[in-house]
Amino acid sequence: MPGMSDALKAALRDRADAVESTLDLLIPEITDPEGRVFEAMRYSVLGGGKRLRPFLVLTTAEIFRVAERSALRTAAAVEMLHCYSLIHDDLPAMDNDDLRRGRPTCHRQYDEATAILAGDALLTRAFEVLAAETTHADPSVRCQLVSELARAAGPHGMVGGQMFDLLTERHGDTRDALDVAAITRMHQMKTGRIIGFSCMAGAILGKAPPQLRQALQAYAHDLGLAFQIVDDLLDVEGDPATMGKSQGKDAASGKVTFVTLLGLDRARDHARILGDQAISHLKVFDGEADLLRDVVQYVLDRKS
Amino acid sequence: MPGMSDALKAALRDRADAVESTLDLLIPEITDPEGRVFEAMRYSVLGGGKRLRPFLVLTTAEIFRVAERSALRTAAAVEMLHCYSLIHDDLPAMDNDDLRRGRPTCHRQYDEATAILAGDALLTRAFEVLAAETTHADPSVRCQLVSELARAAGPHGMVGGQMFDLLTERHGDTRDALDVAAITRMHQMKTGRIIGFSCMAGAILGKAPPQLRQALQAYAHDLGLAFQIVDDLLDVEGDPATMGKSQGKDAASGKVTFVTLLGLDRARDHARILGDQAISHLKVFDGEADLLRDVVQYVLDRKS
Repeated sequence: MPGMSDALKAALRDRADAVESTLDLLIPEITDPEGRVFEAMRYSVLGGGKRLRPFLVLTTAEIFRVAERSALRTAAAVEMLHCYSLIHDDLPAMDNDDLRRGRPTCHRQYDEATAILAGDALLTRAFEVLAAETTHADPSVRCQLVSELARAAGPHGMVGGQMFDLLTERHGDTRDALDVAAITRMHQMKTGRIIGFSCMAGAILGKAPPQLRQALQAYAHDLGLAFQIVDDLLDVEGDPATMGKSQGKDAASGKVTFVTLLGLDRARDHARILGDQAISHLKVFDGEADLLRDVVQYVLDRKS
Repeated sequence: MPGMSDALKAALRDRADAVESTLDLLIPEITDPEGRVFEAMRYSVLGGGKRLRPFLVLTTAEIFRVAERSALRTAAAVEMLHCYSLIHDDLPAMDNDDLRRGRPTCHRQYDEATAILAGDALLTRAFEVLAAETTHADPSVRCQLVSELARAAGPHGMVGGQMFDLLTERHGDTRDALDVAAITRMHQMKTGRIIGFSCMAGAILGKAPPQLRQALQAYAHDLGLAFQIVDDLLDVEGDPATMGKSQGKDAASGKVTFVTLLGLDRARDHARILGDQAISHLKVFDGEADLLRDVVQYVLDRKS
């Protein structure tokens, strides 16, 4: 990809591979009658995606010298949670998408019931993995991981954001009241909170002091928002062949996005400013956070 | 109810009230745009149900002198998990039910998207509540609660059982291969594991010795199965006015149940034998477990 540092390129690839192997171990194939739900979990979780969230977990964990196994299991749990949200969001009753990561969505590949259950199972498995002794010797660390992820994923976080998003799409009346502040809040809930957890997980595992946690939280906040604005831009400007998912959906549904509110140029500017701001929060880490700086550029430049 | 001891009657009522108040506090009404998902969670969780699982949590917790707040929060978490499973199982893509606890199911009252999200949010909130410091001072106890509930609810437990159940309903070929052993395994996964957790939770909170945990596990196993057989009996013999949910569905769908496999009389006998067996496991608790003994009779005699 243009402009991506070699260090980032190698790290993204290596970490994606390591997370893939971990997921493969954590969600086995089984031959029992209920094996179909494992198959659908594996279909949705293996062999695809940017693995941005796991990358953030592994990269912040490295800053705090966290043991590899702890970091990988936590990264895998976050990816399970992310994939559960994609499966449920793609359902006919929600966004009704046929394509994801260039393949049929889970309910198109299997059926709706299996997709609902595979999502439920991934969500449950994510918490099981975080709470397990193999993830960290200290149970208070594990409890903190479970609490923080639940808060980020629950009705005040991701699920609430998705509800909010669906409501704005469906009711023209509320749509008119949406401004940049409201859209920002919605995305902060829908995607920002899990990106925030991903950046925080390494700090929790490494028992980092509050000051460093705050820096990562501020970084994640700006990165997450920049990520979302680029998503809105890609829905307008992206190349469907590269994207691997439906495109032009926002415009077709008359959805309020950063692009409809700000226009293409100002939306692009806004993302860039947030990216700079994200990087500025990393000063306290000096040279330890170079990959986190590089990933901001990657998020801004991404084509899918 | 006929045959129910006064002690059990009072305990069921008092504990259901206490759980109701706890749930009311743990899932507040909110006025934000995403408030609809909280509303749907509250609709599904408040004001109904037998509260059997919370009752088992509170009653085993009492045996081990667990603090009331710990027991109530754990009981509420189990009920959230139970209600999430009902919401998702009732969806059109699953069992397609219109009626639950005498009221429209969540997706009939709201819509499918809201019901999916309300279920997801309840599942997530259950883990959040268990992992919170307010539930127990000892983080290793909290981690154990999260692990055990996740295992009971995940693809090897409840979700796997529901997948298995759906597959047997839909494919005539597998249906012919179903015998009592296969049906027992399926129900042990689908409902037994969560009933098992409910009986175990008090022992986990009270750090009970292994021998007592095993006794409770054995009790829960037999109670859960008896519960399920009565469910199958009620689907044939129950009074729709009392049941508060659709009835006669098993026969209509040609589903394999304990009743189709054993006939009414032998199914009733089987439930009674399991009930006696459940009670026999409680010997080690002497007079401390009278309510657990009474609840077996209640489960066998229930009309809804």
